[in-house]
Amino acid sequence: MNEFDLIAEIKARTPAGSGVVLGIADDAAVLQPTAGMQLVATTDNLVAGRHFIDSGENRATTEEIGHLALAVNLSDLAAMGATPRWCLLTLTLPEADSSWLRGFLDGFLALAAEHGCSLVGGNVTRGPLNIGVTALGEVPSGQYATREGASVGQRIVVTGTLGDAAAGLKLEKPPGDPLRKRLLKPAPRIAAGLELAGMADAMIDISDGLLGDLAHMVGKLGAEIRCDQLPTSIALAEASPDRRERCSLQFAGGDYELLALVAEGTELPDSAGGVRLTEIGRVTDSGRIVCLDAGGRPLETNESGWDHFR
Amino acid sequence: MNEFDLIAEIKARTPAGSGVVLGIADDAAVLQPTAGMQLVATTDNLVAGRHFIDSGENRATTEEIGHLALAVNLSDLAAMGATPRWCLLTLTLPEADSSWLRGFLDGFLALAAEHGCSLVGGNVTRGPLNIGVTALGEVPSGQYATREGASVGQRIVVTGTLGDAAAGLKLEKPPGDPLRKRLLKPAPRIAAGLELAGMADAMIDISDGLLGDLAHMVGKLGAEIRCDQLPTSIALAEASPDRRERCSLQFAGGDYELLALVAEGTELPDSAGGVRLTEIGRVTDSGRIVCLDAGGRPLETNESGWDHFR
Repeated sequence: MNEFDLIAEIKARTPAGSGVVLGIADDAAVLQPTAGMQLVATTDNLVAGRHFIDSGENRATTEEIGHLALAVNLSDLAAMGATPRWCLLTLTLPEADSSWLRGFLDGFLALAAEHGCSLVGGNVTRGPLNIGVTALGEVPSGQYATREGASVGQRIVVTGTLGDAAAGLKLEKPPGDPLRKRLLKPAPRIAAGLELAGMADAMIDISDGLLGDLAHMVGKLGAEIRCDQLPTSIALAEASPDRRERCSLQFAGGDYELLALVAEGTELPDSAGGVRLTEIGRVTDSGRIVCLDAGGRPLETNESGWDHFR
Repeated sequence: MNEFDLIAEIKARTPAGSGVVLGIADDAAVLQPTAGMQLVATTDNLVAGRHFIDSGENRATTEEIGHLALAVNLSDLAAMGATPRWCLLTLTLPEADSSWLRGFLDGFLALAAEHGCSLVGGNVTRGPLNIGVTALGEVPSGQYATREGASVGQRIVVTGTLGDAAAGLKLEKPPGDPLRKRLLKPAPRIAAGLELAGMADAMIDISDGLLGDLAHMVGKLGAEIRCDQLPTSIALAEASPDRRERCSLQFAGGDYELLALVAEGTELPDSAGGVRLTEIGRVTDSGRIVCLDAGGRPLETNESGWDHFR
């Protein structure tokens, strides 16, 4: 199997897509933007040993890697309130391994199909494993969400549950386990992002960790987070019954959830795009991010890293 | 210097760009497509040791690497007849080295500015050196060029000169030498691509080598190439006076030139976009690519690889 075989296999498995005038075939793809929409573009790559474990018993499956490579990009589109349209894939592979490619495409293309995101181009090169994806989405003109827009009194809202990904990593769960799935096969919150973009003043993807990404949003302002209110999955509650340990997992990152700032008066639904919404705190003017316990008392935060981000 | 410092440095050096609603700042960029235009998208990456030499006396400078990483993508846009608009950059670096980044951005951003191609997003990761770029361009709806469209009798036309890049590689020229510049700082033929798209039946970028890329274009048809007509720079003629050796360099690839098929009756200008155009042969129905000498006799092709591509 050589480079051209790899490309032929990718091409053979790529269905025709909406708005794709010319897909994988030529020097570049030709795409039909939708009138009245703005284009949203993001790129992210995965490096072996950094974004996933690629050796030993606990290594990521090729299908998980394929899913994750696209998911991290779709999550960025979700945070803008964009609808995915197209993607491009750059594979740097140590060898032209057809079974690796098959598994990778299983994961990648299944997620792409789920979100109507057509693979339209890419590149295959030999070298240390590195997977680059560019995702392109669309948003009605001017209706994108950004990180900017924090103001005192806003409610801090998060989608889904927190801490599952970190628990999946720490506990070395096998493929198929719900916690591992949240680590390696996260569901990008596209539908939730679309709904939240209409009601939120600001939005961000919190894959780098709740507190760091919240700090990016509130800037010079501050925030109070109610640790007892952090949304927790049953799987995490069972796997990590100790409250302090669990809280530290919930701050550890890797959860491809959305964090939104919503004005005090806005009516907040229980869910958006089929995903639970939880209010976890408020924007303050304290200049610090403070974590409170169930009684509203500031928690000692010796094991966290949140001052580090400020 | 950490990841955030690197991103801050990139952001600080990136000017505001046309059609950039939201650039480097958020989870994704927001871009304003032009009404009546289609989007053209391509991605390509550079791997150390494969696309450039990164150790020893003859290693590429960081500025050359920055230029090359964008140029290979812009050349793909040129081959579609597209105008560059925006680009995204994924840097996987062994260490957060600010002097490396500075040189890289010197090369990358100078070329981006030359072509009005705004850097709007990206990602920085630690790992074995790998540079990924996605370039986005626009073309008036339906007016893109493709590889398809070969028919018997068409003239085969090439931009610029051939063989310089291979000579630059073989002769290990120092930075600034014209042959090395053609290898590591190629000029994407954007303006020529725009003009040729209006007159050519098919077009391709021949960075993989004239004969292989020509084979992609002619498919089941064939071609006659007049080796004595291959456009040759003065620098190459001086550096490689032997005709056979020179011809082999001219087939070796690495020249970011465009190859176009032009109908027999079309009036061919001497240049397009300020770059010389040369007719080097014809499309035939022979099913083979044949190289002819000045007297029209088929050349022995023992050292070339062109049958290999078919």
